[in-house]
Amino acid sequence: MDLSAVRAELPVLERCAYLNAGTFGPLPRRTVAAMEQRLAYDLAEGRSGKAYFEAVLALRERVRDVLGRLIGAPEGSIALTGSTTDACNIAVNALRLGPDDEVVTTDLEHPGLEGGLRVSGARLRVVELRTRPPEEALAALEAAITPRTRLIALSHVAWTSGVVLPVRELVGRGIPVLVDGAQGAGAIPVDVAELGCDFYTVSAQKWLLGPDSTGCLYVRPELVEGLRVAFPSYLSWKRGTFELAPGAPRFEPGWIPSGSLEGLLASLEFAEEAGNGRFARARAMAERCRGLLAERTRLVTPPGQATLVTFAPEEDAAELVGRLAAAGVVIRDLPGLGWARASVGFWTSDDDLERLAAGL
Amino acid sequence: MDLSAVRAELPVLERCAYLNAGTFGPLPRRTVAAMEQRLAYDLAEGRSGKAYFEAVLALRERVRDVLGRLIGAPEGSIALTGSTTDACNIAVNALRLGPDDEVVTTDLEHPGLEGGLRVSGARLRVVELRTRPPEEALAALEAAITPRTRLIALSHVAWTSGVVLPVRELVGRGIPVLVDGAQGAGAIPVDVAELGCDFYTVSAQKWLLGPDSTGCLYVRPELVEGLRVAFPSYLSWKRGTFELAPGAPRFEPGWIPSGSLEGLLASLEFAEEAGNGRFARARAMAERCRGLLAERTRLVTPPGQATLVTFAPEEDAAELVGRLAAAGVVIRDLPGLGWARASVGFWTSDDDLERLAAGL
Repeated sequence: MDLSAVRAELPVLERCAYLNAGTFGPLPRRTVAAMEQRLAYDLAEGRSGKAYFEAVLALRERVRDVLGRLIGAPEGSIALTGSTTDACNIAVNALRLGPDDEVVTTDLEHPGLEGGLRVSGARLRVVELRTRPPEEALAALEAAITPRTRLIALSHVAWTSGVVLPVRELVGRGIPVLVDGAQGAGAIPVDVAELGCDFYTVSAQKWLLGPDSTGCLYVRPELVEGLRVAFPSYLSWKRGTFELAPGAPRFEPGWIPSGSLEGLLASLEFAEEAGNGRFARARAMAERCRGLLAERTRLVTPPGQATLVTFAPEEDAAELVGRLAAAGVVIRDLPGLGWARASVGFWTSDDDLERLAAGL
Repeated sequence: MDLSAVRAELPVLERCAYLNAGTFGPLPRRTVAAMEQRLAYDLAEGRSGKAYFEAVLALRERVRDVLGRLIGAPEGSIALTGSTTDACNIAVNALRLGPDDEVVTTDLEHPGLEGGLRVSGARLRVVELRTRPPEEALAALEAAITPRTRLIALSHVAWTSGVVLPVRELVGRGIPVLVDGAQGAGAIPVDVAELGCDFYTVSAQKWLLGPDSTGCLYVRPELVEGLRVAFPSYLSWKRGTFELAPGAPRFEPGWIPSGSLEGLLASLEFAEEAGNGRFARARAMAERCRGLLAERTRLVTPPGQATLVTFAPEEDAAELVGRLAAAGVVIRDLPGLGWARASVGFWTSDDDLERLAAGL
C-alpha cells in the first residue's frame, strides 16, 4: 500500500496534520464501517442466543491470534484487555507482591503502570532516567536491582521522552520483567519471544489504530500456572466450573463489545496490509521530524529511538499545543514536564511535518 | 410513552419475542444512532485535543449523574465500570480481605461476584438458598454471620432463581454489604440510600438497555476514604499527582469509549422517558408470564419477585431454548441447573408471553 492509499483510509489526515497516535491513532474508515455494521446487527437481531455468543467468543479468538502474531506471541499467551492500565494491574497483582518486595522501575513511566505499582504494597526503586542519556539506562537500572527485587517494570518506549528502554538486556535474571508496550506495539517491530520478557502490554487504540479501549496482555506461557488471577471474570473459568481456564485468557477481565472486536480486527488487517515496511517508514519520518525540529527547538528525544519525538519548547507547552491545534497541527503536551510530543506514523507525510515545523 | 411507542424504539421486538434482557437488553434505536454519530465524529475529527478530552470527561460526569439518579445515589458515590464483574472485583479488593476473614454469600450468585470472592483469600460461607423459599432466606443468611464476617455479598435479584434477596434486612450490622445489582437496577425500583448497602453494582447493558460493557459501582460515601484502590487508572488520581481523587470515581478502572457513553446516555434517557410506571408494568407482565407458564411447566421463581421468571422444563433446557429460538422466542437456559429463564420488561407484550407459552 503506498502512502496515498494509506492516507485515503485515514480521513482525519485530510482535516489536520494529525501527530498524536501516542494518545489515539487515526481511525481507518474500515474500522468504523465494521463497528457500524455490528451495531446495526445488534440493534436489529439482538444480543442473545447460542450462535451469538459462540460468534463473539470466536471473534475474541481471532483478535487474540492476530494480536499475538503482531508481537510474536505463541498461542495461548494473549489475554484481551481494555487497556495497558488493565494489563499492568493484572500483571502486578498476579505476582502477589508484599511489603518485603522491591520493584525496579523508572521515572519515565505512565500512571497506567506507576499507579498499579504504587498501590501494590511493594517498595518502589524509581530509577532516574529522565536526565540520563539512553546508553546509561541499563547500568542505572542494574544498580537498582537487589536480592529483594521481585519485578522489573518499565516501558518499551517511554511515553514521555520517547526513548527505547533496554528490555532485552534486563531479562534472564530470574526476576519477572513487565513491559508497558503502549508506545511500542504497532510503532516499532515487537517480538516478545525475542525480547524474552514475562509480560508485555498492548494499547491497540494507539499505533494499531484500533477502537477505544482495546488491547491485550502477553504472559510468558511458562509463568501462567504460578500466577494469581486477581480480577477474574466468567471468561477466567472453564465453563460451569471454578477451575481456571488454560493459558493467558484466564486473566481476561471481561466482555469486550463485539463492535470493538470487529473494529479492531479491521484495524489490524489494515496494519498488516500496510506491511512490515511501515516500521522503517515510520522510523525514517520520525528522524525527519527530529531534523526539522532541531533547527527550531530543543529536542528531548535522542536520535535512533522509536516514533515519538519529544521536545522542550521555550514557550509554555500547553499554549504551544493550543496554538498548533488552531493551525491544524495536532500534537500533545506532557503536563508537569514542560515538554511537547509529536507522534509520527507510517501514515505521516512530509507536509504534516513541515506544518509542525512551520508552527514552531 | 405508551407500549407501541416503547416497542417502536426497540426494533429487535419486531423480529422476535425477545425475553432475555437479563443477559442483554433490547437496544433502542436512539442508542445506536448516538453511537454511530460519535464514531463518525471520531473518524473525521480524530480523538485528540484538550476540547476532546474535556468533552469526554464531561460526558462521564453526565453518565454518573444519571446513573446515580436512577438508583438514588448521592453525588460523588458512583464509579463508572465496564461491568458488574469489574464492580464486584473492585469492591472485594477494596476491603483487603485475608485468610482470617469470612464472607457470607449464597448459592445463587453469578460468577461475576463468586469468582472475585473465591480468589479473595477469605473463607466463604455459601448459604444454600436454592432449595429454600424466599421467606427463609434472611434467617439462613443471619445464621451464617460470625464475628469473623467481614463482608456480606449477595444479589439484589438472583440471576438464577429470580428471587429478590433481603438486602435491607442485612445492613446495619457493622458488616459491609455488597449487592450484585445486575438483575436489579433498571428492572425494579432501586434506592441505594434506602437499601442502606455499602456497594451496589449496575450492569447497564441489561435492564437499562445500554451498550455492551457499561455499568457502575455505587460506594457509600462514608466508606470511600478507608477503602483500598486496587486497580487504579489515571482517572483515580488528582491530575498530575498520585493523590487519590475525591469520591467513588477514584475506583474507575479506565477509559470507556465515548460512543458507549453517548449510547448509554441515550438509553438512560429512554428509560426515564418511559417513566416510573415502567416498573409496575414490568412486574405485572412478569406475574402474567408466571401465570401462563404455571399451566405448562414447573415454575422456579415464586410470585412477587422481580422481572425474571425461571422454570424447570421437563425436557433438556438448552434444547428447549434452541427450539424456542427457532420459533422466534428468545430466552436462555441456566447451565448446570436444568432451568430456563424468561426476562420480562416494560416493553414486553401479551403476544410475546403467549408465544413463549405456546412454545412450551
